[in-house]
Amino acid sequence: MGHGNGRQGTDLPRGVFAPVATTFDAAGDLDLSAFRQNMESYAESPLDGVVLLGSNGEFALLDEAEKIAVVEAGIEAVAGRRTVMVGTGAESTRATIALTRRAAAAGADYALVVTPHYYAPRYDHAAYVAHYHAVADASPIPVLIYVMTAYTGVDLAPSLVADIAAHPNVVGIKDSGGNAPRVAEVIARCGPDFAVLAGSASFLYPALCLGATGGVVALGNVSPDLCADLQRLTLAAEHAAARDLQLRLIAPNAAVTSRFGVPGLKVAMDSVGLRGGPPRAPHQPLGERDADEVRRVLREAEIGSIAVG
Amino acid sequence: MGHGNGRQGTDLPRGVFAPVATTFDAAGDLDLSAFRQNMESYAESPLDGVVLLGSNGEFALLDEAEKIAVVEAGIEAVAGRRTVMVGTGAESTRATIALTRRAAAAGADYALVVTPHYYAPRYDHAAYVAHYHAVADASPIPVLIYVMTAYTGVDLAPSLVADIAAHPNVVGIKDSGGNAPRVAEVIARCGPDFAVLAGSASFLYPALCLGATGGVVALGNVSPDLCADLQRLTLAAEHAAARDLQLRLIAPNAAVTSRFGVPGLKVAMDSVGLRGGPPRAPHQPLGERDADEVRRVLREAEIGSIAVG
Amino acid sequence: MGHGNGRQGTDLPRGVFAPVATTFDAAGDLDLSAFRQNMESYAESPLDGVVLLGSNGEFALLDEAEKIAVVEAGIEAVAGRRTVMVGTGAESTRATIALTRRAAAAGADYALVVTPHYYAPRYDHAAYVAHYHAVADASPIPVLIYVMTAYTGVDLAPSLVADIAAHPNVVGIKDSGGNAPRVAEVIARCGPDFAVLAGSASFLYPALCLGATGGVVALGNVSPDLCADLQRLTLAAEHAAARDLQLRLIAPNAAVTSRFGVPGLKVAMDSVGLRGGPPRAPHQPLGERDADEVRRVLREAEIGSIAVG
Amino acid sequence: MGHGNGRQGTDLPRGVFAPVATTFDAAGDLDLSAFRQNMESYAESPLDGVVLLGSNGEFALLDEAEKIAVVEAGIEAVAGRRTVMVGTGAESTRATIALTRRAAAAGADYALVVTPHYYAPRYDHAAYVAHYHAVADASPIPVLIYVMTAYTGVDLAPSLVADIAAHPNVVGIKDSGGNAPRVAEVIARCGPDFAVLAGSASFLYPALCLGATGGVVALGNVSPDLCADLQRLTLAAEHAAARDLQLRLIAPNAAVTSRFGVPGLKVAMDSVGLRGGPPRAPHQPLGERDADEVRRVLREAEIGSIAVG
Repeated sequence: MGHGNGRQGTDLPRGVFAPVATTFDAAGDLDLSAFRQNMESYAESPLDGVVLLGSNGEFALLDEAEKIAVVEAGIEAVAGRRTVMVGTGAESTRATIALTRRAAAAGADYALVVTPHYYAPRYDHAAYVAHYHAVADASPIPVLIYVMTAYTGVDLAPSLVADIAAHPNVVGIKDSGGNAPRVAEVIARCGPDFAVLAGSASFLYPALCLGATGGVVALGNVSPDLCADLQRLTLAAEHAAARDLQLRLIAPNAAVTSRFGVPGLKVAMDSVGLRGGPPRAPHQPLGERDADEVRRVLREAEIGSIAVG
Repeated sequence: MGHGNGRQGTDLPRGVFAPVATTFDAAGDLDLSAFRQNMESYAESPLDGVVLLGSNGEFALLDEAEKIAVVEAGIEAVAGRRTVMVGTGAESTRATIALTRRAAAAGADYALVVTPHYYAPRYDHAAYVAHYHAVADASPIPVLIYVMTAYTGVDLAPSLVADIAAHPNVVGIKDSGGNAPRVAEVIARCGPDFAVLAGSASFLYPALCLGATGGVVALGNVSPDLCADLQRLTLAAEHAAARDLQLRLIAPNAAVTSRFGVPGLKVAMDSVGLRGGPPRAPHQPLGERDADEVRRVLREAEIGSIAVG
Repeated sequence: MGHGNGRQGTDLPRGVFAPVATTFDAAGDLDLSAFRQNMESYAESPLDGVVLLGSNGEFALLDEAEKIAVVEAGIEAVAGRRTVMVGTGAESTRATIALTRRAAAAGADYALVVTPHYYAPRYDHAAYVAHYHAVADASPIPVLIYVMTAYTGVDLAPSLVADIAAHPNVVGIKDSGGNAPRVAEVIARCGPDFAVLAGSASFLYPALCLGATGGVVALGNVSPDLCADLQRLTLAAEHAAARDLQLRLIAPNAAVTSRFGVPGLKVAMDSVGLRGGPPRAPHQPLGERDADEVRRVLREAEIGSIAVG
Repeated sequence: MGHGNGRQGTDLPRGVFAPVATTFDAAGDLDLSAFRQNMESYAESPLDGVVLLGSNGEFALLDEAEKIAVVEAGIEAVAGRRTVMVGTGAESTRATIALTRRAAAAGADYALVVTPHYYAPRYDHAAYVAHYHAVADASPIPVLIYVMTAYTGVDLAPSLVADIAAHPNVVGIKDSGGNAPRVAEVIARCGPDFAVLAGSASFLYPALCLGATGGVVALGNVSPDLCADLQRLTLAAEHAAARDLQLRLIAPNAAVTSRFGVPGLKVAMDSVGLRGGPPRAPHQPLGERDADEVRRVLREAEIGSIAVG
């Protein structure tokens, strides 16, 4: 496997990233003060970095100006302390390029570009390659592909990932599907100079076993320690402990992702001393019963307070 | 079926609407001059109305300012001559409301609100009802639901449509799926004071048979005459002729929708004397071979020039 | 559209067919006595024919000997009085041929061959054409394609249907999906010498409008009269009455198909004086609450007793 | 996690199993002579066991008598030398029980029961539990659940698996999906007395890392050595070597599963000195070009002859 893509020497993203929540006040406006408090906690945590404007950051529910406000506030809060990745993907190639440049100018380290999806049935292999290569050409910072099939309906074949990865400014992929053969095939095709990041704490351990360099995991918002532990144990080849921790994280991870989504994540954040607050509509706040269930699951997994100060 | 929803007396949208293409120049910027030329043709055509910012208008690929420019130019071009519906759906409830108000202020007759979809796996029945009712409460103009499953992955159960339709300012639905039992069930549940519009010329005739009030059909961009003929023949109970015309429109309809998408629609527009021009990336222009196929299909269906002036 | 397939002159299946239920006794064995009673009712009803071993006949839950017993008993019961179609499709081509020949020998008029589906991801266009042509070559009776996507996951593209239909012994298709553009495209491609049968009473009227020759409809088991009325009204061009009846049948049709499946169908049969009895496991009998709902829906649609004698 | 299911002490299936191909002669009849030759090779190989009548054994294309012939021949060939699991799942509960008893009488060690699927949209949680518990009650041998979503469209939620696993005679699951969070959740819920078997060599290594006890892997038909090596290396905690081998097996595994299916598997078997022969229709034999590709992929992964004697 000769990977003559010119990436040798580029710093690949490594470690555990939290795709941080965007915070809103009771009126539904951005609450940057709460956001900065959360960011301060993360900057003091064992997390390697944060992702701004990810799916858990409700990026799809933000308008253009709000996105820039979040990027600027987030980078300012952790700059120099943690790696910052920004979700800059939009439906159009030109809007993706514009936001990517803006994020780079604000100091982002990496751009995470979700697959365009609205017209996905009309996009073929060539269209996706052209999109990502145009973004990578225009981007001052390294680009990662973001595959989030549950929300986009789009899954990229490993052969397509490999063709996109031929561009020297495309340095990795975040895959949120958890399909192990898919992860393995991407790693087999793209080689060690291409970063594969697990998109959920629910498969961080097996992904690392296969050669992933880290993860972007919603649960990192709630328990940076345990997510970082999972990576540390795996790299230290403490497989039995890593496996046990992986199994322990399944239920709390589901509570803040597939079971209750961003509303569940925000309840969990509130319960560990961070500023979760209300999600933005059409997201609905959890009812009391579901919120109790989130807290019960966290307790059972022994996930406690993380707030600093 | 008592439909005590307070809609009696409201004008329902009726007839054939074209979801008009948004035009771009060679540099990829909006080409409002070309757009106005097309609108003039449609205003002189047998179409009953136009839809701005629909899926065929590449609304998902436009930025916020461009959307407003298209709405204002489009309404100005046909105001007083044709009914104007505007696609004002965004992922967030608040952005949907903002654009709906803006469209109403510009003179739109109806707002067509696509189902929010990015976080669809997290939206339940109540979330969709809350979204549409919030929009309908805030909207100065009547609202229609827009179900476009091929692009959004979201299909609303007829019982959910009925619950949304309980709001007096929700006056109809555009359904692009073509599932006849689904169309029939929505009509059976929502009654005659609720407009069902076929979302494609490929099932306009059977939908009208079932009680639809019209259609929003991409093929209307290319052949307003035949699409209007199809509605006229059906309303005149000339079923044999309507059926024959319906079958004749299947192939050209597919060429500008499911087979070749917006790029195919734009080739078809160019070929009938309108201003199609390039689609916006990630859409890729059709290759010559596919473009020839689009033109061949139009010729075979005897769809010719429609340009005015 | 020159349809040089040699079918001119063949009798196409026309009218309304009931895909009859297979009856079981309390021990779970075939109850052919109950079955013959039902068949006698249908033979005296306005139905044009019956389908044995259809999905509603729980064909997939019968063993090889039971299938033959049902075919022989069913044909004997109605022979000379009603047209008989037999579901002879199996996963393998050879088993399909064997059962088709057996059904023909027993006196069946048509074979209805469901798409093989277990290995469907491995079957391409050529594999389906080869399968159907091998069956049609070997079958002494005309063959129809049976597309039942909800249960098989397989939907055949209209171009594939047309290629299969090129065989002179393939005379039609039963399509259970209800997708109107799909129905229209099959009719447009295959022409008037090819029978399209609606696979559900939920879209019998629009399918007939488009040129279908009839339907194989589960609701025909419960209300042969109304299903036959729907076809008669449509053929008589009484469109307003046909449409009203179509809308009226939506709810009872759903009760015996998509909502409650075969268990619902059997409750409905019991309630109109036929012999429904228990479904076969893994089907579970309806609970009392669901059974009440089935009966309520039938009453609301004014579907009453049909039993003869 | 107290697993009071009474399974303590039962031997769980462990290690690598090949789901052996069923062989046919040129006329399409069973070729038990070829089958026995293959079985002899497997009995001398490092495989821990074989699965008869699995998906790769084309069980869905066999008639009732053929299934019994394969079971008897297969068990006779390897009895006492290798563990034998038999795919006894049928669409009906009663047919599943009948075949399970027959397999047990013939000497099978385990029954592997695929999820019933034809009427899957009508089967709820309770229906699946009832099915598996009825089979487990009636079965003289331990039962495993077989989830094969690609072919059945059915995926069982981990909570449903756990409810089925509450029966003491249900000892494990073969999951062919490769979804790592799903595997982890089943292991977390069902505990160490329940065997999870990876359903493909494409994720055997990460599944073992998570606590799977082995795998039933199509590639085991072609390269028993490498598949057994992968399990051995993982159990020996030689993770770097295991990972490299896992990545190396991705391409040959795809060639005999997702890319070319059973026809590809049979070409591969022929190429390593076993008796593959023709698949059964509707499966089509691979064309020369695809067959060359299968052989090229095997060569590239350095998979060579395995035939004995």
